[in-house]
Amino acid sequence: MAIFSILLLLCCGLCVASAGIPLPGLGDGAADELFPEILRDEAVARLYELGRISDADSYLERTFLSPAFNRASTQVREWMEDAGLRTWMDQMGNVHGRVDGANTSEAALLIGSHIDTVIDAGFYDGSLGVISAIAAVKAMKNSVSLDDVRRPVEIIAFSDEEGVRFQSTFLGSSAIAGTLPVSALQVSDKSGTTLHDVLKANSMEATEESLMQVKYDPSSVWGYVEVHIEQGPVLEALGYPLGVVKGIAGQTRLKVTVSGSQGHAGTVPMSMRQDPMTASAELILALETLCKEPAKFLTRTSQCDAPVGDSLDGLVCTVGELSPWPGASNVIPGKVVFTVDVRAMDDGDREAVIFEFSNQMRRICDLRSVLCTVEPKHSAGVVRCDPDLSSELDWAARTAARKIAGSTAQLRLPVLMSGAGHDAMAISHLTKVGMLFVRCRGGVSHSPEEFVHEDDVWAAGLSIMNLLQSL
Amino acid sequence: MAIFSILLLLCCGLCVASAGIPLPGLGDGAADELFPEILRDEAVARLYELGRISDADSYLERTFLSPAFNRASTQVREWMEDAGLRTWMDQMGNVHGRVDGANTSEAALLIGSHIDTVIDAGFYDGSLGVISAIAAVKAMKNSVSLDDVRRPVEIIAFSDEEGVRFQSTFLGSSAIAGTLPVSALQVSDKSGTTLHDVLKANSMEATEESLMQVKYDPSSVWGYVEVHIEQGPVLEALGYPLGVVKGIAGQTRLKVTVSGSQGHAGTVPMSMRQDPMTASAELILALETLCKEPAKFLTRTSQCDAPVGDSLDGLVCTVGELSPWPGASNVIPGKVVFTVDVRAMDDGDREAVIFEFSNQMRRICDLRSVLCTVEPKHSAGVVRCDPDLSSELDWAARTAARKIAGSTAQLRLPVLMSGAGHDAMAISHLTKVGMLFVRCRGGVSHSPEEFVHEDDVWAAGLSIMNLLQSL
Repeated sequence: MAIFSILLLLCCGLCVASAGIPLPGLGDGAADELFPEILRDEAVARLYELGRISDADSYLERTFLSPAFNRASTQVREWMEDAGLRTWMDQMGNVHGRVDGANTSEAALLIGSHIDTVIDAGFYDGSLGVISAIAAVKAMKNSVSLDDVRRPVEIIAFSDEEGVRFQSTFLGSSAIAGTLPVSALQVSDKSGTTLHDVLKANSMEATEESLMQVKYDPSSVWGYVEVHIEQGPVLEALGYPLGVVKGIAGQTRLKVTVSGSQGHAGTVPMSMRQDPMTASAELILALETLCKEPAKFLTRTSQCDAPVGDSLDGLVCTVGELSPWPGASNVIPGKVVFTVDVRAMDDGDREAVIFEFSNQMRRICDLRSVLCTVEPKHSAGVVRCDPDLSSELDWAARTAARKIAGSTAQLRLPVLMSGAGHDAMAISHLTKVGMLFVRCRGGVSHSPEEFVHEDDVWAAGLSIMNLLQSL
Repeated sequence: MAIFSILLLLCCGLCVASAGIPLPGLGDGAADELFPEILRDEAVARLYELGRISDADSYLERTFLSPAFNRASTQVREWMEDAGLRTWMDQMGNVHGRVDGANTSEAALLIGSHIDTVIDAGFYDGSLGVISAIAAVKAMKNSVSLDDVRRPVEIIAFSDEEGVRFQSTFLGSSAIAGTLPVSALQVSDKSGTTLHDVLKANSMEATEESLMQVKYDPSSVWGYVEVHIEQGPVLEALGYPLGVVKGIAGQTRLKVTVSGSQGHAGTVPMSMRQDPMTASAELILALETLCKEPAKFLTRTSQCDAPVGDSLDGLVCTVGELSPWPGASNVIPGKVVFTVDVRAMDDGDREAVIFEFSNQMRRICDLRSVLCTVEPKHSAGVVRCDPDLSSELDWAARTAARKIAGSTAQLRLPVLMSGAGHDAMAISHLTKVGMLFVRCRGGVSHSPEEFVHEDDVWAAGLSIMNLLQSL
């Protein structure tokens, strides 16, 4: 269903310019160069090289400031410097590479994505945006002097987008946007280590002042662009390598704790149990039913007057993590903790789902005599991409895709909403944002099966290069 | 409901002798000694001392041949030697303490329980049976010479009853009974270490021959007695410190693996998911419903012709452990593994429940397009205790309880079935078995809240001492 709702955007919605847009500032000579050895071959090799930097032996796991993360950031800085960028790591672990160009005092174009990963991750999520941007700058250096870039360009490899370590996403990008509260320093990872302690252990200051230093002055920034794999099946289904992102779904993440009565699996009769595992199972099924068939439970609360259909636009609900305590086959658990992730393309819809889930939770937990508590871990509203920046990205991507395909036809790129959150959400609090999606095989992501064709990696890099040359 | 079904046993069932049974071999002088300083004060102190030997800092966890287990076994051997027993550890980590007495060639009375624990355990489960037996021998040594004991007496502290480390219970006692297959050496713990490797790391041989050496010749054993906390609420409800066990429920333990399609929590529409977490939730609820209301699903398959009632005798089903992979809030899991524990007082009932659960699993997994596999981890039929040994235990316990209460009334002790499994199940393949249950507060077990009143610890020790003196 999501595919159909997204396809509708092709016929309505955002006014992305199609054929005939002027090509501001593009040197004709440079535009003919396609740099496959940098934008495709080297970029793909670097994606694999980065993907092998992991904290686990047999799968990819690279979380905020872990040993593998630090090795990866060193590697990314080397590649940035190889592309002619001046580099540094800020006080929240973000890696920066900047060229000031001809007009140092101009507001900068930021291009970024993240280099942290989920557990058992693929090689492209986040990394593709960083590596294709570095490749684009490197290729550009081979075509024009970076000293001639008309405004400063800065690539940022964000330190935390996935939120795996601290169950709190966008640590890196929200620090730069200035929206990370100082209280975030006190959140703990599973081992009980706080963000403050992790930063200190990595020779960072971890104070209110050091957080303020990470924050960018909005007047110093012109806009933000992010290239990311789609993580969904639409581009593949349509046969396009690239798509322009209209906006990003809002997200809520919750931590649910269900406390019951721990006991021996053989001696407590079924009728006397206060079992948090079976209660959690009922809650998980209630959430699934609510998100599959919201019309049964909700009346629409957003400004739109349309009735709730069989599904809400982009509504998805996930329980990805669940942990029983003490976790032994012959013990009725005393406690079960699980995560809830709810996303929708409309903030009112999402809030209505959370409200209804809370109501059902109260009823279920009361009936089962277990104690249920909900801790909000993350909430972000829908983000709309900037139409002008999206138009420029559309032109840059269309041109790149056409040239790589060796076609003269004027492509019209798909326009998509993103169900996945991205650093652009956090950076939207700082400046206008635009995003490009890159096709991935089967729409698979957050999995070692994640795959992007090398020509699509090339198209991504060439798009950014086109954009840079148009500045 | 279980309470009522167990209470019925007071009026029917097992012929446990009541008042007036002859007291074979008990010396009158010795019988007057109650040894509170050994059987109560020192035993309670030792229970606390043993309970503090843990692999975890803030709770009790002591699994098969862990560092804490090895410290505990050294401590138990010291206490056995202090009681006048000759000690050794066998090739499966069981700790033995033996006195041969006056008739070395006689078949021995074994008295045992386990010193491994669940995770976040209490101080009495298993340990009470070992420590009260040691206390009884020590007290007896102070009243008569152990050289005069009429048959060999051997206390065994079993190395694994809970099955936490290898998800396979009774490693210790089944090796002694000779029912542990050599293939068990290849089972792995969560870290991938096999039982074979663990034994080798503890300087044991871990071969088919060494397993054979652990096995006892049935002709060398007269019987087996085990004291254990009830782990249920019946004795407390009836106001009795001790009860005689008629038999032990049969158990099945399964490992269920649900494999689906791993993906990004924000980009896979609800209708396209193959989510093993929601499938597992549905399976867990199906199991719960089946065990709460078996009459809706089952026709009785055992030899008894009675129809299935609202509940089956002692039927309990538990999911104590569940683990999603990769386990992150923003990833639809690719795989979920959980445990199933089913117990019933009738083997036919239990098999019917497993059969029906398998049917429901097939249907649920097919509908959800996930792959479900079931691996049997443990299965044990109902065990009936030996009536004669139970009569002797009844006399020994009645006498102990009466003396401690300072009463001259002829108590009649409750007769119970055990929902929990015990080493006596495994040893029943070697020799006749008898068990005594000791009252515990609130029926709570497998929890740090587990508690036995010090006078009940005393009654347990005095019961064993009475039994020894009657040999």
